[in-house]
Amino acid sequence: FPGIRDELIEYLAKENMPREAQEWYKNNLDYNVPGGKLNRGISVTDTVEILYGRPLDDAEYRRAAILGWSVELLQAFFLVSDDMMDQSITRRGQPCWYRIPKVGNIAVNDSFMLEAAIYHLFRGHFRSEPYYVDLLDLMHETTLQTELGQLVDLITAPEDSVDLSKFSLEKHRFIVLYKTAFYSFYLPVALALYFVSPTIPEVASHESLQRAKDILLPLGEYFQVQDDYLDCFGTPEQIGKIGTDIIDNKCSWLINAALAHASPEQRAILDECYGRKDPEKEACVKKIYSELDLVGKYNTYEKDSYEKVTGLINQLPADGPLKREVFTSFLEKIYKRTK
Amino acid sequence: FPGIRDELIEYLAKENMPREAQEWYKNNLDYNVPGGKLNRGISVTDTVEILYGRPLDDAEYRRAAILGWSVELLQAFFLVSDDMMDQSITRRGQPCWYRIPKVGNIAVNDSFMLEAAIYHLFRGHFRSEPYYVDLLDLMHETTLQTELGQLVDLITAPEDSVDLSKFSLEKHRFIVLYKTAFYSFYLPVALALYFVSPTIPEVASHESLQRAKDILLPLGEYFQVQDDYLDCFGTPEQIGKIGTDIIDNKCSWLINAALAHASPEQRAILDECYGRKDPEKEACVKKIYSELDLVGKYNTYEKDSYEKVTGLINQLPADGPLKREVFTSFLEKIYKRTK
Ligand SMILES: [Mg+2]
Ligand SMILES: [Mg+2]
Ligand SMILES: [Mg+2]
Ligand SMILES: [Mg+2]
Ligand SMILES: [Mg+2]
Ligand SMILES: [Mg+2]
Repeated sequence: FPGIRDELIEYLAKENMPREAQEWYKNNLDYNVPGGKLNRGISVTDTVEILYGRPLDDAEYRRAAILGWSVELLQAFFLVSDDMMDQSITRRGQPCWYRIPKVGNIAVNDSFMLEAAIYHLFRGHFRSEPYYVDLLDLMHETTLQTELGQLVDLITAPEDSVDLSKFSLEKHRFIVLYKTAFYSFYLPVALALYFVSPTIPEVASHESLQRAKDILLPLGEYFQVQDDYLDCFGTPEQIGKIGTDIIDNKCSWLINAALAHASPEQRAILDECYGRKDPEKEACVKKIYSELDLVGKYNTYEKDSYEKVTGLINQLPADGPLKREVFTSFLEKIYKRTK
Repeated sequence: FPGIRDELIEYLAKENMPREAQEWYKNNLDYNVPGGKLNRGISVTDTVEILYGRPLDDAEYRRAAILGWSVELLQAFFLVSDDMMDQSITRRGQPCWYRIPKVGNIAVNDSFMLEAAIYHLFRGHFRSEPYYVDLLDLMHETTLQTELGQLVDLITAPEDSVDLSKFSLEKHRFIVLYKTAFYSFYLPVALALYFVSPTIPEVASHESLQRAKDILLPLGEYFQVQDDYLDCFGTPEQIGKIGTDIIDNKCSWLINAALAHASPEQRAILDECYGRKDPEKEACVKKIYSELDLVGKYNTYEKDSYEKVTGLINQLPADGPLKREVFTSFLEKIYKRTK
């Protein structure tokens, strides 16, 4: 990452940007881009290795890693702004960027500059590739999809006004696919497919991309449902924090599954207790979750989802360009989280 | 614009986005995109007409207008977010978008979706053009440049902490070029040059674009200096508002010109009085502006700038693809503002 960061800062220097602004951008990048788990970025280089069927040499790795960092930059753009919109306090164990006193609202423009970094890097490293325009289209479409998901999330589940009649499993699914699955699951693999497309024929054909999407979106959906489940039923050691989805009025899979099965009496309690800053009301919600056997319903969902995804993977032609291992490696990482 | 808006909303409908989110995006677009003076957007279609040397037919006009609206969308993206960062109250005679009660911080994501609309429209209408990738690169570069200008402006002239030692004519020039001139002056013409490039050879060559930039950036710089001048010396009828640059600690051409010529005593007064919410201190600053004859200095600057730009225009080969009228039409609109 320091190499990528320095490349961006050098551009500013070349444009005669004042030194304190160069320094500012450096701090923005260092504070907000590395420091996560980097799963999304790493899955780009991992996927390229699987498709090539061999380890990458240094030059290949560096180029593929730029695509990986582009996913992390996109995520940083969304996280910096999401924290402002949610008025969150901390992120990755440090204060949210906008809460650094001298930053404040400048964080809005800083988030823009994280997004703009993606296109500057793409242009510098991929402008002459035949798939350059596909990279740009993919990144634009994914960005818009994530913003659509964010919008539906924001107007469906505002932290300060609870209205469970706005919730539904269908809306939950839209939010999860658009806000998370496209950029976290489909994007890294699609970037890798374009990257290897000059040497592996058909790997980034329309059909191949569509198959990858058909597998990765359900996988991403399951990943988020699992995240929602663990927020309530995982131990703090498992999830590294104490879950607050009920208190925060989150449009979680659990509340939507509960709403789908609740009796009128249970529904009345959910309406009264969900999304309130009150541990007793939170406990009432959890009690209904257990009355409705959401653990059992989750296990059924998980089993169905696993079988569906496995089925799709097994339908991939064994000798096709799209190796099954691309997807089984994801599958193992994700389904083992609880197992 | 309704046609363009509906095209965007139809995309959301096709993606099964919940109806209230479609409605939200429609309101975002209607509230923030039209309603300005539309100079930037109109200069795209005007430039195309000049280059073709004839009026556009309906189909041509509609396509060129999409490029025009892309500039207005980019501007809306910047204005919605700028108003949040500046905590402004009104914009174009109505409350700033983020100040609509149910909007609030969601305006951050709404601004993103104004930017994303550009790329969705480009893809829908220009994907098969030979210059498609050039449109994308141009738009990305201009976006980053504007964000760089915004950053320097934000850290040089925060409204709540005055430090005139951060100001200089050099920094003023950077802010003006990057924050305003690239997207308001160069971008519309460059879009028009790409648009006509399939039928007019060499019109969007590297050299031609560079010549356009060499003329349009000084023009944009002058435009902003004039804006800064009128904020203080224009009548409220001329500028449609009461200027507040001195009170708001703006990094205006006037204060930078004053700092460049002030005696130590005058400088001490400027340090004490600039950027304070106090009409008496504002009057002290204006008194120093008049002691330093900033009106005279501005008239000299204007004359020099006009001659420089006119000289560059006259250097354009009379029979080249880049017609002088593209630039003289800008020149007349802008220099006549005060005359
Ligand atoms: Mg959040
Ligand atoms: Mg959020
Ligand atoms: Mg969660
Ligand atoms: Mg402002
Ligand atoms: Mg501002
Ligand atoms: Mg002004």
